[in-house]
Amino acid sequence: MKDIKVGILMGSDSDLPIMQKASEVLRELGIGYEMDISSAHRTPEKVIQYVKDIRKRGIEVIIAGAGMAAHLAGFIAAHTTLPVIGVPIRSGALAGIDSLYSTVQMPPGIPVATVAIDGAKNAAYLAAEILSIKYEEITRRLEDQRQDMRNSIEEKSKRLKKKLKP
Amino acid sequence: MKDIKVGILMGSDSDLPIMQKASEVLRELGIGYEMDISSAHRTPEKVIQYVKDIRKRGIEVIIAGAGMAAHLAGFIAAHTTLPVIGVPIRSGALAGIDSLYSTVQMPPGIPVATVAIDGAKNAAYLAAEILSIKYEEITRRLEDQRQDMRNSIEEKSKRLKKKLKP
Amino acid sequence: MKDIKVGILMGSDSDLPIMQKASEVLRELGIGYEMDISSAHRTPEKVIQYVKDIRKRGIEVIIAGAGMAAHLAGFIAAHTTLPVIGVPIRSGALAGIDSLYSTVQMPPGIPVATVAIDGAKNAAYLAAEILSIKYEEITRRLEDQRQDMRNSIEEKSKRLKKKLKP
Amino acid sequence: MKDIKVGILMGSDSDLPIMQKASEVLRELGIGYEMDISSAHRTPEKVIQYVKDIRKRGIEVIIAGAGMAAHLAGFIAAHTTLPVIGVPIRSGALAGIDSLYSTVQMPPGIPVATVAIDGAKNAAYLAAEILSIKYEEITRRLEDQRQDMRNSIEEKSKRLKKKLKP
Amino acid sequence: MKDIKVGILMGSDSDLPIMQKASEVLRELGIGYEMDISSAHRTPEKVIQYVKDIRKRGIEVIIAGAGMAAHLAGFIAAHTTLPVIGVPIRSGALAGIDSLYSTVQMPPGIPVATVAIDGAKNAAYLAAEILSIKYEEITRRLEDQRQDMRNSIEEKSKRLKKKLKP
Amino acid sequence: MKDIKVGILMGSDSDLPIMQKASEVLRELGIGYEMDISSAHRTPEKVIQYVKDIRKRGIEVIIAGAGMAAHLAGFIAAHTTLPVIGVPIRSGALAGIDSLYSTVQMPPGIPVATVAIDGAKNAAYLAAEILSIKYEEITRRLEDQRQDMRNSIEEKSKRLKKKLKP
Amino acid sequence: MKDIKVGILMGSDSDLPIMQKASEVLRELGIGYEMDISSAHRTPEKVIQYVKDIRKRGIEVIIAGAGMAAHLAGFIAAHTTLPVIGVPIRSGALAGIDSLYSTVQMPPGIPVATVAIDGAKNAAYLAAEILSIKYEEITRRLEDQRQDMRNSIEEKSKRLKKKLKP
Amino acid sequence: MKDIKVGILMGSDSDLPIMQKASEVLRELGIGYEMDISSAHRTPEKVIQYVKDIRKRGIEVIIAGAGMAAHLAGFIAAHTTLPVIGVPIRSGALAGIDSLYSTVQMPPGIPVATVAIDGAKNAAYLAAEILSIKYEEITRRLEDQRQDMRNSIEEKSKRLKKKLKP
Repeated sequence: MKDIKVGILMGSDSDLPIMQKASEVLRELGIGYEMDISSAHRTPEKVIQYVKDIRKRGIEVIIAGAGMAAHLAGFIAAHTTLPVIGVPIRSGALAGIDSLYSTVQMPPGIPVATVAIDGAKNAAYLAAEILSIKYEEITRRLEDQRQDMRNSIEEKSKRLKKKLKP
Repeated sequence: MKDIKVGILMGSDSDLPIMQKASEVLRELGIGYEMDISSAHRTPEKVIQYVKDIRKRGIEVIIAGAGMAAHLAGFIAAHTTLPVIGVPIRSGALAGIDSLYSTVQMPPGIPVATVAIDGAKNAAYLAAEILSIKYEEITRRLEDQRQDMRNSIEEKSKRLKKKLKP
Repeated sequence: MKDIKVGILMGSDSDLPIMQKASEVLRELGIGYEMDISSAHRTPEKVIQYVKDIRKRGIEVIIAGAGMAAHLAGFIAAHTTLPVIGVPIRSGALAGIDSLYSTVQMPPGIPVATVAIDGAKNAAYLAAEILSIKYEEITRRLEDQRQDMRNSIEEKSKRLKKKLKP
Repeated sequence: MKDIKVGILMGSDSDLPIMQKASEVLRELGIGYEMDISSAHRTPEKVIQYVKDIRKRGIEVIIAGAGMAAHLAGFIAAHTTLPVIGVPIRSGALAGIDSLYSTVQMPPGIPVATVAIDGAKNAAYLAAEILSIKYEEITRRLEDQRQDMRNSIEEKSKRLKKKLKP
Repeated sequence: MKDIKVGILMGSDSDLPIMQKASEVLRELGIGYEMDISSAHRTPEKVIQYVKDIRKRGIEVIIAGAGMAAHLAGFIAAHTTLPVIGVPIRSGALAGIDSLYSTVQMPPGIPVATVAIDGAKNAAYLAAEILSIKYEEITRRLEDQRQDMRNSIEEKSKRLKKKLKP
Repeated sequence: MKDIKVGILMGSDSDLPIMQKASEVLRELGIGYEMDISSAHRTPEKVIQYVKDIRKRGIEVIIAGAGMAAHLAGFIAAHTTLPVIGVPIRSGALAGIDSLYSTVQMPPGIPVATVAIDGAKNAAYLAAEILSIKYEEITRRLEDQRQDMRNSIEEKSKRLKKKLKP
Repeated sequence: MKDIKVGILMGSDSDLPIMQKASEVLRELGIGYEMDISSAHRTPEKVIQYVKDIRKRGIEVIIAGAGMAAHLAGFIAAHTTLPVIGVPIRSGALAGIDSLYSTVQMPPGIPVATVAIDGAKNAAYLAAEILSIKYEEITRRLEDQRQDMRNSIEEKSKRLKKKLKP
Repeated sequence: MKDIKVGILMGSDSDLPIMQKASEVLRELGIGYEMDISSAHRTPEKVIQYVKDIRKRGIEVIIAGAGMAAHLAGFIAAHTTLPVIGVPIRSGALAGIDSLYSTVQMPPGIPVATVAIDGAKNAAYLAAEILSIKYEEITRRLEDQRQDMRNSIEEKSKRLKKKLKP
């Protein structure tokens, strides 16, 4: 289960604080990943090289995060038929609306599975859901995580009610 | 291969002209699907019923399309750990910006894989890419489709150049 | 008059600093309320359970606050014919435009009475206005509050004019 | 039950095609209403006159629709403690975003219950929900209407499935 | 010349830090003004009272600043044929886009002369330009102020060039 | 009274259908005007020539309409201390938001009195209001026009009520 | 002068009606060009091939037009140090705002010279201006064209004034 | 090579922190530049004077940065056929969307080569790319700079992978 299954790419090292949240979620779910910096605009050859034969290297889902005119996820999607998850990253004056539009508005034929602005956590959960159609064990872990979420809200709910009591 | 694998849901029958494009792409790729109308706001019980035991019924990816305050995809995602693809549909005064934000800006833990506004075709291609990690045959079909796309552009390119010649 | 009449729900405990303003206004107006955390995406069953038989428990208006793809108010509205007031909460990159659109752009048949982004105070005043059609006493209190507002502005106006005098 | 309970106001006769949908819904639900044209900017005195003693005339909810810098609902709300429902109307270059912001972003103390752009139907349903806390009969009618909505979707769902069958 | 000619109104005392800039510019230009707090929503009667007979009191231009659903300038414009200058004030989640649209998108017949978001200085300059068609002296002062602006930029230009020299 | 007092400029002859509405309103109010086409970008010299000595030619208010990166009003304002009214014109993909921002967001010192997108009528009314501080006759005409507006709405109100009667 | 100097690329044949305007302007200015269809997402290899050795083939400026998540111009810019002009094309629900942001918001180091949405004509004029720093003849042609523009506006101005005369 | 080739203008000294980045990049690339403050609105004559005979003074590209209703680049473009690069600067409530639209949405015939909001660095790179069509040496420097960028990312990539190793 620890074999690498998810590739995480980001366009710049300034995206690392956000994109690390994806790797943390994958680690919690016991899903292997690799992580690298590679820019659609500054090192396109490196990105193409990365995507080439990616299925053979055992990667099954790719997560790509980038800001501003965020082309990284779309650029990767243009070079593979693996599912590519795009994380629009908030940076600069337009606060992520630019990266959201640049990531989600892909032309027919080359989809990018887009999550919320700065939504690196959900990119990891989505990757896990995708893997869950093949690896039953991951389904179980995701269901446990959902139960944890419910419990955590139940906890907070109790604490709030206690505080509100006269 | 024709066993049903993709569930397509839409919030209203007015979404059908858009959502049908998803079913057409799946048909071309030889992937089974089922399609239904069910609203997060008007028939929530029906949606919950639909999602319950959905893995057992053999569905592996869900595509959900809705307009305006488009809650359908998020609502489904709250009830399953299967990958859910959201299609924001353009309708009304805000031209799909409302449905895009309502679909993509999901909270951590409950992801929706969002495609472009009215991007039902890409929802189907994304579903196929997700299935391709499990069914090798689909990878081949997707690669053929990519080749077709390349050929089609090559065709158009030739025709344009011919037209431009003195 | 202190019997519970308003139910306040929020999607996450991070919404509490905003939503508490609603409870403060209700307390000032002498209107009973209960308050809980419950997420449309993370604990949908809990929300459904909460809304079920809500009229019988004496709740007459519901206030729901949530951020980002804010589905909570719409989700509640889908399960009750009681008036539901939605408070779009500012959070994340889109600064509440996402939650505003997700809350207000409801489809025909399932309305949400939406107030300003972070407008929890007005949610409470609106709840009181709604109750005032049934409880005459509340009308009087609202009119007193309006008079207080007028007095407060009159005060500020006087202070400003004093300061401006040569 | 046919005694007038809802007052419908609009800023211009060009708003009538939209606002009529509110009156149609109220008629279906058997709720009385009156309807008038009155502009916050062109006939402010008429609006003030209309709101004065409005409770005594038996009006319990006000619906106000206006376009562009849509001040009508807020202007009415400033003169009454009755619940005021605002319908932002789409008109001109900004397609209703201007009227949405002008209607919903009210300052603390003077709420407007805002519905979707051009959402006159939901304004009527919301008015009915508000009245339902006082008039039990309306609750029943609203529940019937919800059932009708569910049936209508069930119908469409069946028809779609039939069409899809091989 | 020191007789009061410009009336400055603001919707809340929180608008004072912005609106004071208008009074400072007027003082520099030697134009009289009065300043008050009065809300279109919280003290509409006070606003109407203020505008009544305003020509007789010697006011010739009105400047009104407000935030969010900024109705103050439009509300005043509805009650006078004097020129009304609107200052949309930045406040809350929408950063002044709401107040800009609420101020500028007025219906035909009731204009508001809108300046930039938080543009209180320009409101004062515009008021002076309006008065300049009647009071020649003000034209001269405005031309002096323009010359000052030019000199100030010339200064800065020289300083920059000096700094850049090798 | 028929001496020219208002100068109307537009950036392109495609703006004429909108800008003509300004001239119609001025004609109704009996205010003289001249109208010309002159572009800040294509004929800047012509604009500068136009503005030079404009006070001496008897112009007291300038109305300028332009679309897209609408610099015309600001460009004129940079060359005169007369009041300049800007009409942002809707054209192209951004539907007038570009021209609104380009017109209204002027830097301190050089104001443009901005009206609604395509709001040429209000530009004329605003020009009249400005002139009214100097020409008492125009005040009277504006008050008549306000009365006409009120009557017109009263008419429409009566017609609507008649239609609604059983 | 007829040697090819400008390369025009577009992402889809649906962009042709817009991009043809660029070729028309170049033809009028007597500047050579070549035109092709090539997609950053569907035929990335073809784009890379096109850009390779592009300086050697005599191309000195590249114009690239694309809609939605418009990556074409940025993708080309990543592979050459020639100036690349981007034309954001209006298409789909977001009316070109998506393509504008995707084209203009490039990261430091890889610039795209962006023109207006659908601004293919200006892309050609900009290309000519760039070439004019090297080819004096083009400067002359551009100055002629500016003169033509001035004359055309002068014409329209005369016609308008004639029409306005009593 | 050190002869002045690029003219940098900004509308206000508050733009200096951003615009200095352009001069730094040019210095690194060994390209000469001059820099000045000059406002389209406050010192239009100075701008016109600056642009006049600019080709003769050896300037070949102009970079202009301005905020809000950013007319400077367009104003310069109206007075020269040299390529003008516009830098929309973020300032005030609209965070640079206003300056982006004011800079990029130019009418046909007068192009401005627009870069990202606050994108002064890219303005300099673009200027260098334009000059590279004439000065071969600059091509080489740009290619070196691209190589440096690639190396820098390679460095960061290595450091990240090292950190990730168990």
